[in-house]
Amino acid sequence: MELIGERINGMFKDIKEAILNKDAAVIQYWAKRQEEKGAHWLDINTGPTVSPEEQPAVMTWLVQTAQAASTLPCCLDSTSPAAIEAGLKVHRGQALINSTSAEQSKMDIYFPMAVQYGARLIGLAMNEAGVPKDAAARAALAMELVVNADMHGLAMEDLYIDPLVLPANVAQEHGPEVIEAIRQIKMLASPSPKTVIGLSNVSQRCNERRLLNRTYMVMCITAGLDSAIVDMEDDLLVDAAAATEILLNRSIYCDAFLKTFRQR
Amino acid sequence: MELIGERINGMFKDIKEAILNKDAAVIQYWAKRQEEKGAHWLDINTGPTVSPEEQPAVMTWLVQTAQAASTLPCCLDSTSPAAIEAGLKVHRGQALINSTSAEQSKMDIYFPMAVQYGARLIGLAMNEAGVPKDAAARAALAMELVVNADMHGLAMEDLYIDPLVLPANVAQEHGPEVIEAIRQIKMLASPSPKTVIGLSNVSQRCNERRLLNRTYMVMCITAGLDSAIVDMEDDLLVDAAAATEILLNRSIYCDAFLKTFRQR
Repeated sequence: MELIGERINGMFKDIKEAILNKDAAVIQYWAKRQEEKGAHWLDINTGPTVSPEEQPAVMTWLVQTAQAASTLPCCLDSTSPAAIEAGLKVHRGQALINSTSAEQSKMDIYFPMAVQYGARLIGLAMNEAGVPKDAAARAALAMELVVNADMHGLAMEDLYIDPLVLPANVAQEHGPEVIEAIRQIKMLASPSPKTVIGLSNVSQRCNERRLLNRTYMVMCITAGLDSAIVDMEDDLLVDAAAATEILLNRSIYCDAFLKTFRQR
Repeated sequence: MELIGERINGMFKDIKEAILNKDAAVIQYWAKRQEEKGAHWLDINTGPTVSPEEQPAVMTWLVQTAQAASTLPCCLDSTSPAAIEAGLKVHRGQALINSTSAEQSKMDIYFPMAVQYGARLIGLAMNEAGVPKDAAARAALAMELVVNADMHGLAMEDLYIDPLVLPANVAQEHGPEVIEAIRQIKMLASPSPKTVIGLSNVSQRCNERRLLNRTYMVMCITAGLDSAIVDMEDDLLVDAAAATEILLNRSIYCDAFLKTFRQR
């Protein structure tokens, strides 16, 4: 299970201010902190505060600043292809692009970009018509992403498909559909594409957010989830990921399995 | 998700002493306490302290004592058919017999007994050869239980199949097999038999027992688990059961979903 730390995102007040003041210390604190907590990737999102023209420069600064403090690779999270490409140009190691949708015009930008820079790519199971209602429609869009990966020569294990989780309080019927979509997506190709979700979405504006997050993560891993963008400050969530790997017999049980998971 | 409170069991010191001293207060404390915590059934197990001859009388006393303090039905847990039948004779409401194996000689005792007393029945996916290694072998034994239920006229929803969980530290490879067995058992008949596990077994002599228990329960519910024998003192476990029902869209989300789950 790969955990992508969600914290370096301009929607958080401290990150927004760090971006505006070019305050490297805040970015580096969260880069190191999330690595210590057991993250495998750092999500890097400029957030809504900077103008579209400024986004590439801000992405460049964020990636360089974060990677100066952490050995982790980054998940470059932006709706701007120029910002993504700016991040790819300075990124050390294999980056993860977040994200393309299953719209052909977007796939035609991001698949070649991923291949050119040797990056991995998150593909969202949505298109012009929005987020599908059920598992089968999500799997159909996932298949378009799989076909495009094949077409553009992106290795299937470098494609991460996100079936798109919605909040339980307003779109509760999507919960089991996303779980079933993950199960179906893992059977679309062999080797199978990877799967990823933005976990915290499931509990937006709900009570008991951390409980819902960690429970849903366990449910999704059981169905085949490979990675998730998560709050690495949530120790019970990281514990749950470690326990799930033990109980699926993916890591060997030892009494220190929680420590071992975080030190991978 | 039906939770069966594990606490009234002679293997616990206070229950053992209560049995020996006929101390009703201890039994009634745990009967009420587990009901308040949200249990749907009370497991009643005389434990290893009384002789086989004494077991029927002890079971009778335990059932009557517990049901004098709680409205819950009991899960009559004994290897002695005479003790089970003694419990059935005094039980108020529909009891759950725990358990028969898939050995024909045992099924020939317990299926007719369940039908005679209008009880439900737990069937273990094991026979003379012991506990199976993989999911398919568990499902094959489950099928024998299903056939016997049909043959004896026990309604399929009154049959609870237990695929038998083993401890993660010594039989880790069984973890995913049991999950897959649950998925297969739910497809054996329509309506499908119910499924049950003795949850605490998964973490016997492991570190982080409660973490392993609640995580495995969520994994198993996602695969189709209907009920489990659990430690009702473990609030995070009950919370996890409530959250899983919300996330599978089986109960309607409300901000007080934890309270609602416990008050069902």
